[in-house]
Amino acid sequence: MTDGVPDVDLDAYKREGLLPSSGAEAPAPHDGTGRVDISFRVDAGPDAAPTQRSVRVPPGVTVFDSASWNGIAIDSTCGGHGTCHKCKVRVEGGAAVTRHDVRTFSPDQIKAGWRLACLVQATRDLEVEVPPLTTRPKAATVGVGRQVILRPALQKRYVELDEPTLSDQRTDLLRLTDAITDLELTADLPLLRRLATVLRQADFKVTAVIVDEALIDVEPGDTTAERYAIAFDLGTTTVVATLLDLGTGTPVAVASMLNKQQPFGADVITRISATMMDPAMMGRLQAAAGATLAELAAQVCDEGGIDLGRVYEVAVAGNATMTALLLGIDPEPLGVAPFVMSTSHPPTVLASEIGLDLHPQARAALFPALGAYVGGDIVAGMLATGMDRDKRTRLFIDVGTNCEIVLSDGDTILSTAAPAGPAFEGGAIRCGMRAADGAIETVRLDDDVTLGVIGDVEPKGLCGSGLVDVVSELVRVGLLDGTGRFVPDEQAAETVPALAPRLTRIGEERVFVLHRETEDTPPEESVYLSQRDVRELQFAKAAISTGWSLLLEELGLEHRDVQQVLLAGSFGSYLSPAAAVRIGLVPQLPVLRIVAAGNVAGEGAKMILLSVRERAGAAALLEEVKYVELSDRPDFNDAFVDQLGFTT
Amino acid sequence: MTDGVPDVDLDAYKREGLLPSSGAEAPAPHDGTGRVDISFRVDAGPDAAPTQRSVRVPPGVTVFDSASWNGIAIDSTCGGHGTCHKCKVRVEGGAAVTRHDVRTFSPDQIKAGWRLACLVQATRDLEVEVPPLTTRPKAATVGVGRQVILRPALQKRYVELDEPTLSDQRTDLLRLTDAITDLELTADLPLLRRLATVLRQADFKVTAVIVDEALIDVEPGDTTAERYAIAFDLGTTTVVATLLDLGTGTPVAVASMLNKQQPFGADVITRISATMMDPAMMGRLQAAAGATLAELAAQVCDEGGIDLGRVYEVAVAGNATMTALLLGIDPEPLGVAPFVMSTSHPPTVLASEIGLDLHPQARAALFPALGAYVGGDIVAGMLATGMDRDKRTRLFIDVGTNCEIVLSDGDTILSTAAPAGPAFEGGAIRCGMRAADGAIETVRLDDDVTLGVIGDVEPKGLCGSGLVDVVSELVRVGLLDGTGRFVPDEQAAETVPALAPRLTRIGEERVFVLHRETEDTPPEESVYLSQRDVRELQFAKAAISTGWSLLLEELGLEHRDVQQVLLAGSFGSYLSPAAAVRIGLVPQLPVLRIVAAGNVAGEGAKMILLSVRERAGAAALLEEVKYVELSDRPDFNDAFVDQLGFTT
Repeated sequence: MTDGVPDVDLDAYKREGLLPSSGAEAPAPHDGTGRVDISFRVDAGPDAAPTQRSVRVPPGVTVFDSASWNGIAIDSTCGGHGTCHKCKVRVEGGAAVTRHDVRTFSPDQIKAGWRLACLVQATRDLEVEVPPLTTRPKAATVGVGRQVILRPALQKRYVELDEPTLSDQRTDLLRLTDAITDLELTADLPLLRRLATVLRQADFKVTAVIVDEALIDVEPGDTTAERYAIAFDLGTTTVVATLLDLGTGTPVAVASMLNKQQPFGADVITRISATMMDPAMMGRLQAAAGATLAELAAQVCDEGGIDLGRVYEVAVAGNATMTALLLGIDPEPLGVAPFVMSTSHPPTVLASEIGLDLHPQARAALFPALGAYVGGDIVAGMLATGMDRDKRTRLFIDVGTNCEIVLSDGDTILSTAAPAGPAFEGGAIRCGMRAADGAIETVRLDDDVTLGVIGDVEPKGLCGSGLVDVVSELVRVGLLDGTGRFVPDEQAAETVPALAPRLTRIGEERVFVLHRETEDTPPEESVYLSQRDVRELQFAKAAISTGWSLLLEELGLEHRDVQQVLLAGSFGSYLSPAAAVRIGLVPQLPVLRIVAAGNVAGEGAKMILLSVRERAGAAALLEEVKYVELSDRPDFNDAFVDQLGFTT
Repeated sequence: MTDGVPDVDLDAYKREGLLPSSGAEAPAPHDGTGRVDISFRVDAGPDAAPTQRSVRVPPGVTVFDSASWNGIAIDSTCGGHGTCHKCKVRVEGGAAVTRHDVRTFSPDQIKAGWRLACLVQATRDLEVEVPPLTTRPKAATVGVGRQVILRPALQKRYVELDEPTLSDQRTDLLRLTDAITDLELTADLPLLRRLATVLRQADFKVTAVIVDEALIDVEPGDTTAERYAIAFDLGTTTVVATLLDLGTGTPVAVASMLNKQQPFGADVITRISATMMDPAMMGRLQAAAGATLAELAAQVCDEGGIDLGRVYEVAVAGNATMTALLLGIDPEPLGVAPFVMSTSHPPTVLASEIGLDLHPQARAALFPALGAYVGGDIVAGMLATGMDRDKRTRLFIDVGTNCEIVLSDGDTILSTAAPAGPAFEGGAIRCGMRAADGAIETVRLDDDVTLGVIGDVEPKGLCGSGLVDVVSELVRVGLLDGTGRFVPDEQAAETVPALAPRLTRIGEERVFVLHRETEDTPPEESVYLSQRDVRELQFAKAAISTGWSLLLEELGLEHRDVQQVLLAGSFGSYLSPAAAVRIGLVPQLPVLRIVAAGNVAGEGAKMILLSVRERAGAAALLEEVKYVELSDRPDFNDAFVDQLGFTT
């Protein structure tokens, strides 16, 4: 064995039928389509009732990642590489057994379904039992297989100080800092205003609260166990908050909601335009962003049973426009050529300055940005996916209205932005809608149409992943040709007779009907895909694939050189890998190389809260990553036209 | 000649009678008593009317210092050592001619009264004409003969930046900092909120406003000429503000007023007690201090014709209690044993945090403090008097309710505090009053009583310097004996028959009548000195002289070893040196070694605004100066009793 796991006598396991005999079929890999549901039963220990949580993920995501992305804590210290043997869970009905499982569990345990969560790929719906956390780990696993050694900027130190005397008149501050010799502490005015009183009320037994080397508070008694932070993924559409216990590195609660800026415009350009037309809009957008964060903070603290005043730091990953609006910085130069940011490194501010009512001196760290359209969310994503640490050739794609692309050959890292337009978020699509209840998110065509609908309700429309799915399936079955045109009716009837009747017209335009309530529902009242919708998708995917094509060219690489494609963002993560390959949104690669990376912006935000080294790493990315401006390139238009069609 | 001034043919001057012939009498030195008035006529150049200002100083102060302390700018770059030959003034009626004057002026100019202001000691009332400033000097003269090379923390840089293009998408901040390569600039949020807008409105031609390395603003166009700061001496009783032009290092305007905290208590202990009895008092005292500074700031800016928004920095020198109250830090531990400060190094805060409405990002630098009773005002005083840079043995005494004493032998610097009580500020003295109109400030006894009264009005009471004067004169003429008792009536009648009738009684207590409106005014309605007043003064001066005696002992020094005594503070500077020697408030030394140092706290505050090196020097003083706690010493009481009497 070559992976560092000592040899074990596997016979006992084989006899029990727990391991496939040599040469027998390995469990079938997933085909990159559809969704799986994982139902977690989280055991909170002897004193609390277990909780039940269901999550929905693309096939192939590990149980560990599925839990982590959804704020469910599972023991781990190794970074999800199967080496720490801590992430024990019980999978109802079992799962493929790996050698690491054999090293970890007895045959009885294996039979009972115990597995290492980081090695269980969810290829079917699962019920998973999570035991109570047993360790206060020194490291946490976040992002895509990233192990973070816990070293938060936020520290607490409990000290018992000598009381002052006439022969020891050291100042209160010096008395405290003399007791914490490994840090060069500085104190700000709010701390000094409290210091004398707290020290004396607490008989000089206090907990120092420190962010980096700034002493932000002293608390009476020993409060070292209570130290929390909130990681925010501040998306244009959706905002996600994760409350973290910085002592253990584990998530305590997760919540998400629509960005309250939504009513002012669906995308960043609309919101920037709004501020240009109405000077009062800037303040309203800023307030809306702050209110969103504040509401989520209240929600996660409430859910976690944590006092808001015990949250001392937050991290925010957002694109350049979201970051500017949150800080009250005029976004206009981001929205007009030549697309210039005020700064790439926003300063650390007080959380109260971005609308949060946490500990009064809580700090807010905002991710730096590479450019006006490769913002802090992407830097966070690069951090979470270890783009600068992995020697493989990897392509990172965050699919959205604006699509960001990063390519690394393990040495050089390039990034660019591609304006994909709103198609992937359901915009400009006749029956388009957001990924909400009633949205068709997966489509399978054979003799009939099989739809996966969010919420398992009557289909109301098509969300982005459903759009990609249906187009890819129509290409596959031969109802769309390589140029993106619906084939003639006769050809349809010949090729796929069972589906041909769904190819009809609304007015002049050809449409494919996905769902109608009754046989008599007219096409215009059904959920359908129109010829124009196909064109919208073609433009969107061409913008993206032109982006990565040019980056590949820049590094002299072919499709097949790409060892991993990470699909990121709230939409990207839910895209069907098979469909993404088929329509050419990603390079032509085996689906197993296409990986849903989850909410990597949020994961990156967690990482900089958990580790100052990761925070430094995020800043360092700005030096390492080269931004490629596509609009400058003379070969852009040719490349774009090349990417419009489909491979049939 | 040995002082670096080249030889000159002095004959022409001698022939004109401008220089005393060799061996002739030098101008008589002052005798250390009384006051002189200097009337300045400040020429503001061809476009403005001259202004007239009168100041009142102790004899022996130079014209340059008298002007500087009162906010009257005179050219100078050398530090008042007679070497730059820039501080030209015309003294009506002339003054002693020095060799430096001869190097500087023609015989006609000398005859017309032109002299170097730093070499003219005011030993009589003077009328002085100050020409318009001719230079933008690289240095300013402040404090006691301190020359400060101008290097303010506040800098302005005018830059003309290239406008961004698609091939130059540098951020606004980077574009700006790339143009200022000698500083590692940081930007805070308020700056970033303005940056994009200001750059574009001003066609990328802006002035960067920098404090240390913090970029605090960008202003459209070239505003480099407008950079101002305010130095505050935040006294318990009186607060003084000096508006400084940081481009030239010259004062623009000076104003002073009573600290608005006065109604809450005359001294620091009363105010600390007030906060202990009423929790709301803390906020009221803080607000009162801030309001005092704000009113003075408005006053000096109004007088100087300067927009408050062009003041970017302030410095505050105050004792530990004043500093704590200004910052909103609970002063209680300063007022009760073991007398502990929250911190010796208050952080730099925004001026707005201490109640000032200047530039919104203006910084406030507060002096560090050595101890609860050797505060930032004394550190400022040490800086202004160069206690750490002068190789002579010097004694610095700031006389007040609390008296601070610093002794340096050119190597070791010791400091201590002595609780003198309120006598020197007119407190606990029957006819005591503050140094205001009607206060007797000088007293001379011979055949009659000669009184110097502030405002030249009918005497209403005795201020501190008058109290010291009258006691010293009574000792001198033999009406007070060495123990501080009025001599018996018979002895008085024999020793000083002309004054003996003024020695009378109010009830049981013996008093000396200084002034009565008419012959018939009864003693109790007159202005008098009582036996108990003498006792109060004895206790006050004994506290002080015990302080310096023990410091001298600590360094193994005698009185005669002290080469200079600096009397500081609003009261100390107005004390008659001769009287101070006679009553034993200072060591027994020739009066010429006793120097009024002026408002050294205010001068120190100016210095840290003018030079970052001086600011670092102030912080370094905390490491260099050793604080000696007197209340710890077993020999304190003996020494105190030894110091109670007078040398007759």
